Amino acid sequence: MNLRRVRLGPGAEFDRIRSMLEQDAALRGRLGLGEPGRDAVLVGPGDDCAVVHGAGIAISVDLSVEDVHFRRDWLEAEEIGWRAAAAALSDLAAVAAAPVGVLVSLALPPADDSGNRVMAGLSEAAARHGALLLGGDLARSPGPLVIDVVAVGRTGAPVLRSGVLPGDEIWVTGRLGGAAAAVAAWRAGRAPDPPARAAFARPNARISEARWLAEHGGLHALIDLSDGLAGDAAHLASASGVRIVLDLADVPVHESAGQAGTAGDALALALGGGEDYELCFAVASGTGDALAPGFLRTFGLELTRVGRAVPGEGLFARERADAEPRPLGMGGFSHFGPAAGPLPGERTGNSA
Amino acid sequence: MNLRRVRLGPGAEFDRIRSMLEQDAALRGRLGLGEPGRDAVLVGPGDDCAVVHGAGIAISVDLSVEDVHFRRDWLEAEEIGWRAAAAALSDLAAVAAAPVGVLVSLALPPADDSGNRVMAGLSEAAARHGALLLGGDLARSPGPLVIDVVAVGRTGAPVLRSGVLPGDEIWVTGRLGGAAAAVAAWRAGRAPDPPARAAFARPNARISEARWLAEHGGLHALIDLSDGLAGDAAHLASASGVRIVLDLADVPVHESAGQAGTAGDALALALGGGEDYELCFAVASGTGDALAPGFLRTFGLELTRVGRAVPGEGLFARERADAEPRPLGMGGFSHFGPAAGPLPGERTGNSA
Repeated sequence: MNLRRVRLGPGAEFDRIRSMLEQDAALRGRLGLGEPGRDAVLVGPGDDCAVVHGAGIAISVDLSVEDVHFRRDWLEAEEIGWRAAAAALSDLAAVAAAPVGVLVSLALPPADDSGNRVMAGLSEAAARHGALLLGGDLARSPGPLVIDVVAVGRTGAPVLRSGVLPGDEIWVTGRLGGAAAAVAAWRAGRAPDPPARAAFARPNARISEARWLAEHGGLHALIDLSDGLAGDAAHLASASGVRIVLDLADVPVHESAGQAGTAGDALALALGGGEDYELCFAVASGTGDALAPGFLRTFGLELTRVGRAVPGEGLFARERADAEPRPLGMGGFSHFGPAAGPLPGERTGNSA
Repeated sequence: MNLRRVRLGPGAEFDRIRSMLEQDAALRGRLGLGEPGRDAVLVGPGDDCAVVHGAGIAISVDLSVEDVHFRRDWLEAEEIGWRAAAAALSDLAAVAAAPVGVLVSLALPPADDSGNRVMAGLSEAAARHGALLLGGDLARSPGPLVIDVVAVGRTGAPVLRSGVLPGDEIWVTGRLGGAAAAVAAWRAGRAPDPPARAAFARPNARISEARWLAEHGGLHALIDLSDGLAGDAAHLASASGVRIVLDLADVPVHESAGQAGTAGDALALALGGGEDYELCFAVASGTGDALAPGFLRTFGLELTRVGRAVPGEGLFARERADAEPRPLGMGGFSHFGPAAGPLPGERTGNSA
């Protein structure tokens, strides 16, 4: 039985929504995904609410604002939509939930004809991550393009930020600082490396990876790296009531970040650069080493131990294993803090 | 057992979120609502996702943009927040769902110190409608204040737009056009009547009313009046594949709309004015008359029959019971249609 699609009423706004839904359906067809089934969703787009069957529903929301989170001269409209969806879906990865769908609010400047292209990229990201487009809202904006994505997922046993125990090891997936390297290049007036540009423009939410880790073993805590390793490790420490000590020499730096001026610059991009959307997790000592080979075989992605938890509080770091750990600033991007700037580029470099 | 509240990390952005959560908790205390229980919500603010127990989850999202949906010189910051929450929660009323909570995305202009006041009004509206603050996102805006509210509710058997049958009667709660009368007054340079101003500034989502109606009897279809009676009745007709004929003489006009220049002006406000957030529903002939006295006793609010459904399609209206029905324009507010203007005031008058 197919998803109930309510027939939309007349009017120019509904024409726009209708064309967005049509392109979402067309994209699902091209990807061979077919019509969503009614076992997953009782009511989809067109009614007042999306209604989702099942227990243990995870819901998150992620806001993307033009000239704050992205710039139009850096990204194609489709990439703006993809990023907005991936950022929201990454919050589902961060609790090891399985995506059900997304709802999308879009505020479009007058005479801006990029709405459908933004939604095309968004639909593609949603479909490729296993999420349906469940609904949304659409309005004019007298200023910037604004995209707010609600991600809805299912989880029987969410893995939270607050489970880190003293003695745990802290691990990350993939390599860090690629998105920040792209922003740094743009801000310096250069075109970024293709891998860095791809990291910023089409990030992947680590949904399958998070669920594999949760199923295979003993995750104590999990977070996605949206604010940068320094910022998000500080969140883990704070939520869990432990101190986390990062081993700076072990942080896996993205190839493009590695081309930054100095080793210190590269590390600053990897620690302070937000929006890598890799995972950071805590496991008992030894567990990560047991998981890494199978994870690499399954996803072609490295797992790297970057630190450990000890009694205490706050985020610390040490240059070498025999050095004394020192407090590390939060380093995440803050929209409101004294170091905040108008663009993601300023997320980098304020951390170490 | 209390709701799990994750301890937030350091930083100015989290300080803001923390202060907003604190004011939400303080408000719940003042209202005597206490801490939310873990039977309803497994994970609340501070983690990556809100996780809600239970089956039949309804989720909706509603966007409010400065100078599109509201103006700062018309409303206090708290009222802006209240309206944004009520508009989103009204979508739960529109499917007869019981609120669980809201997530709030807020894009704030730099140096705008009204964020906490907006959130105070929003928290109050949420609490008074039985919704918890589950999470959200916060960013700077280089332009307007933007508020996007996700409403999450529970519903075993949602009442949809698509169930109107030929022969059904169409009924509404309350009186229509009050919010539009306030906007018309502001745009004419006058202060609105207090009742009209209250209708626009502090609307109530008809949550309890919708659930009462769903429990008491035989609702075939339900919608909330966010686009105006003409617009939303057209949605009912379109979603259900029927024609709806409104009896214009029976439309209950709000006292403030009734003070508009002519009877035609008053009717235009009642038909075309969005954001009354009253309910419109379809029932078999006779059911509404049986419900109305108990509804009035329970809520102090009138139920009024405004039309009927017949075979066919589209929205029609007649001036008198013996007149020939004629097609009625959609009349709802469109952000993108040719009649769209920069402000809600332009929602009125383009309908009949």
